Amino acid sequence: MNANPKFLARTARVDDAAVKPMPNSRKVYVEGSRSDLLVPMREIVQSDTPASFGAEKNPPILVYDTSGPYTDPRAKIDIRAGLAPVRAQWIEERADTEELPGPTSRYGLERLVDPKLGEMRFSLKRKPRRAKSGRNVTQMHYAKRGIVTPEMEYIAVRENQRCDALPESITRQHRGESFGASLQKFITPEFVRDEVARGRAIIPANINHPETEPMIIGRNFLVKINANIGNSAISSGIAEEVEKMTWAIRWGGDTVMDLSTGKHIHETREWIIRNAPVPIGTVPIYQALEKVDGKAEELTWEIFRDTLIEQAEQGVDYFTIHAGVRLPFIPMTAKRMTGIVSRGGSIMAKWCLAHHEESFLYTHFEDICEIMAAYDVSFSLGDGLRPGSIYDANDDAQIAELRTLGELTDTAWKHDCQAMIEGPGHVPMQLIRENMDLQLKYCKEAPFYTLGPLTTDIAPGYDHITSAIGAAMIGWYGTAMLCYVTPKEHLGLPDKDDVKDGIMAYKIAAHAADLAKGHPGAQIRDNALSKARFEFRWEDQFNLGLDPDKAKQFHDETLPQEGAKLAHFCSMCGPHFCSMKITQDVREYAEKHGLSERDALKKGMEEKAVEFVRKGAAVYQKA
Amino acid sequence: MNANPKFLARTARVDDAAVKPMPNSRKVYVEGSRSDLLVPMREIVQSDTPASFGAEKNPPILVYDTSGPYTDPRAKIDIRAGLAPVRAQWIEERADTEELPGPTSRYGLERLVDPKLGEMRFSLKRKPRRAKSGRNVTQMHYAKRGIVTPEMEYIAVRENQRCDALPESITRQHRGESFGASLQKFITPEFVRDEVARGRAIIPANINHPETEPMIIGRNFLVKINANIGNSAISSGIAEEVEKMTWAIRWGGDTVMDLSTGKHIHETREWIIRNAPVPIGTVPIYQALEKVDGKAEELTWEIFRDTLIEQAEQGVDYFTIHAGVRLPFIPMTAKRMTGIVSRGGSIMAKWCLAHHEESFLYTHFEDICEIMAAYDVSFSLGDGLRPGSIYDANDDAQIAELRTLGELTDTAWKHDCQAMIEGPGHVPMQLIRENMDLQLKYCKEAPFYTLGPLTTDIAPGYDHITSAIGAAMIGWYGTAMLCYVTPKEHLGLPDKDDVKDGIMAYKIAAHAADLAKGHPGAQIRDNALSKARFEFRWEDQFNLGLDPDKAKQFHDETLPQEGAKLAHFCSMCGPHFCSMKITQDVREYAEKHGLSERDALKKGMEEKAVEFVRKGAAVYQKA
Repeated sequence: MNANPKFLARTARVDDAAVKPMPNSRKVYVEGSRSDLLVPMREIVQSDTPASFGAEKNPPILVYDTSGPYTDPRAKIDIRAGLAPVRAQWIEERADTEELPGPTSRYGLERLVDPKLGEMRFSLKRKPRRAKSGRNVTQMHYAKRGIVTPEMEYIAVRENQRCDALPESITRQHRGESFGASLQKFITPEFVRDEVARGRAIIPANINHPETEPMIIGRNFLVKINANIGNSAISSGIAEEVEKMTWAIRWGGDTVMDLSTGKHIHETREWIIRNAPVPIGTVPIYQALEKVDGKAEELTWEIFRDTLIEQAEQGVDYFTIHAGVRLPFIPMTAKRMTGIVSRGGSIMAKWCLAHHEESFLYTHFEDICEIMAAYDVSFSLGDGLRPGSIYDANDDAQIAELRTLGELTDTAWKHDCQAMIEGPGHVPMQLIRENMDLQLKYCKEAPFYTLGPLTTDIAPGYDHITSAIGAAMIGWYGTAMLCYVTPKEHLGLPDKDDVKDGIMAYKIAAHAADLAKGHPGAQIRDNALSKARFEFRWEDQFNLGLDPDKAKQFHDETLPQEGAKLAHFCSMCGPHFCSMKITQDVREYAEKHGLSERDALKKGMEEKAVEFVRKGAAVYQKA
Repeated sequence: MNANPKFLARTARVDDAAVKPMPNSRKVYVEGSRSDLLVPMREIVQSDTPASFGAEKNPPILVYDTSGPYTDPRAKIDIRAGLAPVRAQWIEERADTEELPGPTSRYGLERLVDPKLGEMRFSLKRKPRRAKSGRNVTQMHYAKRGIVTPEMEYIAVRENQRCDALPESITRQHRGESFGASLQKFITPEFVRDEVARGRAIIPANINHPETEPMIIGRNFLVKINANIGNSAISSGIAEEVEKMTWAIRWGGDTVMDLSTGKHIHETREWIIRNAPVPIGTVPIYQALEKVDGKAEELTWEIFRDTLIEQAEQGVDYFTIHAGVRLPFIPMTAKRMTGIVSRGGSIMAKWCLAHHEESFLYTHFEDICEIMAAYDVSFSLGDGLRPGSIYDANDDAQIAELRTLGELTDTAWKHDCQAMIEGPGHVPMQLIRENMDLQLKYCKEAPFYTLGPLTTDIAPGYDHITSAIGAAMIGWYGTAMLCYVTPKEHLGLPDKDDVKDGIMAYKIAAHAADLAKGHPGAQIRDNALSKARFEFRWEDQFNLGLDPDKAKQFHDETLPQEGAKLAHFCSMCGPHFCSMKITQDVREYAEKHGLSERDALKKGMEEKAVEFVRKGAAVYQKA
């Protein structure tokens, strides 16, 4: 019997802060071609423009929503039951998978029958599935055959930022081009299929994780972010990890990696997956290492293989596999400032040196592909030799590994396996572009998935910022997904506040990259927020932002009165001196006289000017 | 009588947190060619490399220090007395200035004799100085004549990051080039002079602010950051502003702008200047507006002129002057998303429209130059038409103003006035380079001084991050000084925590830019910190970072025991599983066997490998 009553008490509910709807927002669903294809979005309702600014209606703004059913007050949330398997019907309909009698991994079976784990085990009624013999069930496999899956259609709807009903003032992008209704045509289901078929995008969607709301990772789509969670030997339990997951997706995590290295990895993972509407990634070598009591040299292909199957049958959507850490590359790290900093990379380096053999991940790569294809687990080809300091950036070891990851991508694609490529790490700004260009070249445009990169090493405690700089740039240059870094990087384990801070920094980086790439519709939210700001619609400004709670809290620290949120000024300058107000006065004045400001000036305005001064000129005192 | 006893009580001392030396650091002074030329630096002492990593000595690291005498325990700090006038002798020696009987501005005189202000007035014994009739006292004037001033020599010493005694492992830069001793030759006094002479750098150093420790702003020097402080009608008093200044320079503010708009602007400024070892900037139009009770249209050249003289005689080092907001440009802002967001810009726009006249700042620009030259106040040519949203970035209004600022730069240089150019604002990443390139072109390489830019509008509450991204990039592209943005931007007035957060984000951006530009020596600190990190020298890692306090606090949240700071592992992975430790084991193993890893592999290591495994292979359990 498990002696942790707190565990049960906590898992029965979700943290309230993580499940209440965002302010002035409601969950809406856009229906696709079939009634069970319902794409969730967050609709942010705006107030009207005040009379003094023209009294227009401001349309609701739809934004991409990663939070799943948790923010839908109509959804029944019960963590013990898990989320509804929205994709189950689609998977079954394809009729290329079969239900297994139970876990087929040795370890998965052991855990299932271990009575000591009874109380902490997630009680899943459903059996695991696997591809029927001889079948390949990856989204890439379908895509290459011209099949548009419901997942692809779902993604096409989801990626479009709808703007049918939006006024031109909001849909204009930089320098005035309006993309308007043409936006709807940008991401079609066929476009999604094509990008997946050519390997330029992946849809991480294990057939054993039917709870996922499909999403895509590729550089012709919105830039995504990943949040890492996971306990270690030292800290954190199952309930906390599930809470971190719901917290992470509330704020915009597109995928979550469970990097647990402590006890009960298997059970923690099951709880997370069953309650996750986003893809879950793992690094299976971490768990394999636990199975050999931390002795890297005792790892074997058989133990690793069993771990892959164990996790694939739980529903992990992507695996980090450090198959590019080859024996001949390891000595290249000897002269580095910080050696090998990737945990997976150092485990494999240790194994290779101990055995003086090529990595079993590399020699068994085709075997791994077969497993991935049977469950549609996507590869995240790990960068075990990524630099751990500015000094080590883009060095021989890193680039040698990247080339190898390119070769492995070819092998994965041969098996119709989906693959993305992991990237650094620590890279000064002037070397980021080179990194991206080499990745596109060696890995034939397979999606890049980078950690940061951190652009300097001198700010422990602020590495969400040192790395958001690099992340925004590499996102602009073409990275498809950014792995977040929290303020605790290099120092300790992130708590909930750190998770949120990391996500915020990375949502900013990803969105800045979307803007820079000119992703159609990305600027709608900026425009709406800027318009709200200019019109002193404080609540709208808060709610259109990434973090309404913090924006409101900051505002209220200086001006706590409720009336201040209707005021046509803010705390920076006070009531009698506000630049936005003055600009508004200028426009109003010109309009009142039936003239555009430009015309007014052209005709010569001395007369009007005199009148303006005579009337008091202090227009802003009327409000 | 002033009825604020709290004011006096507080100004008598400085906040302890702002004046204690940084941990394991001491203030050292590098002497120049004369005994009164003592350049302060912060020396960070490091511990030795632990035996298991090779037991080497780690040299102390010298870093640029903006904190002034406050962090020197030998200095006597008395805010009522102000700082010692380190430059007074140099200014007098030049014999081109004269002591005035008192303030020559009408307003300065009024304040001096107003008995109500007695208690809040800083009691300065020294009289203000001004250039003798017909003389020009700017650093640019001297530079053009081939004179190397003590200020220039001071800067040359200060900009060099000394590495005489540093081992090659620390001075190596990316890809192994070591700059070693050649570094000392990079910034010579003559180079400083030349850069100032050609207008590519400025030394803000008012003859009435002899307390400053000279610093330089130019793109061939370290990228600088500015911190804004200042009360408004709504919040904050004199004592708090002085505290914010000492707090801002403790964390790395290179200059401080006092943007006060509330009561007692004159007195607040005096206290700040007298206690500031860094240049102080202001926006004189703010105070001029207060003098006409906030009625922009009542502003006159005479009031503005008196304000310039008032502030120049107090010692303000640079003035933001929005002389580029010309009448014909104002209508160009009518179709903007967010109009005119600069306070100075909107004041002048209002004045121009009310009078239908060209801006008096523009028409009187040569008169302004004469004042600047008489006190050596540097121009910061304001960007009154900077964009307030992504949508408005790089638009016609902004670029028209930038061209005008280029013309004004020529005029300023004609008078040997030092000038830098202010820049945006809100700019998406893909437009940042264009902005920088146009500035260099139109303004003939005069230093660029940018606010951010913010790379997206959707994150109120996190604009220190949205803008640090843009700041790092534009710093790399050539901006000489970055004006910080705090998390409270757009929402409220920054408190001390916000000031620190803003500075940290901007120190990161500035340093990332220095690295990207390949500034010699910039990487020393990254290398030293990375080496400390790799060798588990936790205290050194904290102390070499920008914020030792926060790094230590974060570490201790997970591992509070004092022993953990000596441990060869950290909380992320726990004691039995650490990637850095494993890498270290790999190196150690190779070394123990008298082989480099590469050689070992080349010779074939099967035999050794067997032995390694036989011995237990768990090297890390010995520690």
